[in-house]
Amino acid sequence: MSILPTPLTNLIDELGQLPGVGPRTAERYAFHLLRSPKEFNDRLSHLITQVQDGVKYCPVTFMLIDADQEVSPLYNDSRRDRKQIAVVEQPLDVVALEKTMAFLGVYHVLGGVISPIDGVGPEQLHIAELLARIKADKAKEIILATNASVEGESTAMYVQKLMREQHPKLKITRLARGIPSGVDIEYADQITLLRALENRQSL
Amino acid sequence: MSILPTPLTNLIDELGQLPGVGPRTAERYAFHLLRSPKEFNDRLSHLITQVQDGVKYCPVTFMLIDADQEVSPLYNDSRRDRKQIAVVEQPLDVVALEKTMAFLGVYHVLGGVISPIDGVGPEQLHIAELLARIKADKAKEIILATNASVEGESTAMYVQKLMREQHPKLKITRLARGIPSGVDIEYADQITLLRALENRQSL
Repeated sequence: MSILPTPLTNLIDELGQLPGVGPRTAERYAFHLLRSPKEFNDRLSHLITQVQDGVKYCPVTFMLIDADQEVSPLYNDSRRDRKQIAVVEQPLDVVALEKTMAFLGVYHVLGGVISPIDGVGPEQLHIAELLARIKADKAKEIILATNASVEGESTAMYVQKLMREQHPKLKITRLARGIPSGVDIEYADQITLLRALENRQSL
Repeated sequence: MSILPTPLTNLIDELGQLPGVGPRTAERYAFHLLRSPKEFNDRLSHLITQVQDGVKYCPVTFMLIDADQEVSPLYNDSRRDRKQIAVVEQPLDVVALEKTMAFLGVYHVLGGVISPIDGVGPEQLHIAELLARIKADKAKEIILATNASVEGESTAMYVQKLMREQHPKLKITRLARGIPSGVDIEYADQITLLRALENRQSL
């Protein structure tokens, strides 16, 4: 016999399946929902059931878009340069880059990284679509903006190799590696410091 | 213009209102829900809307119970001693005490602590009901199991004073204060160590 009432226990169990949510956090959320205004719960509940139907992938950039949009508004924005494409792993990377307000090109979301251990090969990512798009949009520069992880780096290398073969004149760049802003050199890790040294800039 | 599609942005905003959930955690949950099986989302959504209607407070112990139960199953259990009542702040305290499997009395949930700063006075807690219950059930022992916080201690003191006045022969105890199991003395805080010294036990 569970000590808490069944509807509450079930809710705790279900919330406990969200990523990074342990039993205590799930309890905390469930008790919060128990005491919330009914309207909050109804709205949350509605949003959860609707999110999948309300969202789809852009067929060009593979960014997440509203179900009633044809392509990503970022791609459709006439002020943005379609010949400059930033290649990222996930939709949230687009959000992060947009926050810099410094990029006026367009994006291409790979939808992950090559990771044989997780069974993800190049054919599961939107690499073929990227190559086709480079041709169709007559792209001039590709900025490889994958994560600085082993998988991110090797995916970038793989994509770079294919692009070099098929589009030899294409300018290919990647995000600079170096000391992150606000970090003391004494606390920077070895690899970061090594990259910062290798890529030192002339003043 | 939001960079992510509207249904996703709305879900992130709503999830961000759960306790302790910041924007990044809300994003993580929302992306998980976007990729979850539809059945998971439907079930979670259903549980969230139903939890308030499916749960009520026991009119005797003020523990949370299923809406179709009359009183708490713990109170109704004939193997448990109704004359021994553990007084706790919140329903989750009952769960914690039950996990010890060492208590065979019954519970009384105060529903909070006296906290003038939060506008909670004794009349908002189930103290009057406790006094009435002591009389009705001919209680012999009250175990004050409020938290070891300032509010928990002063609430316990307030309840103790009332019980002493109205039921002079009642045995009143409280949970022992001391070194928690597994903690080194060198890391115990001053007050804990002081209490452990004051309440040292004869061997």
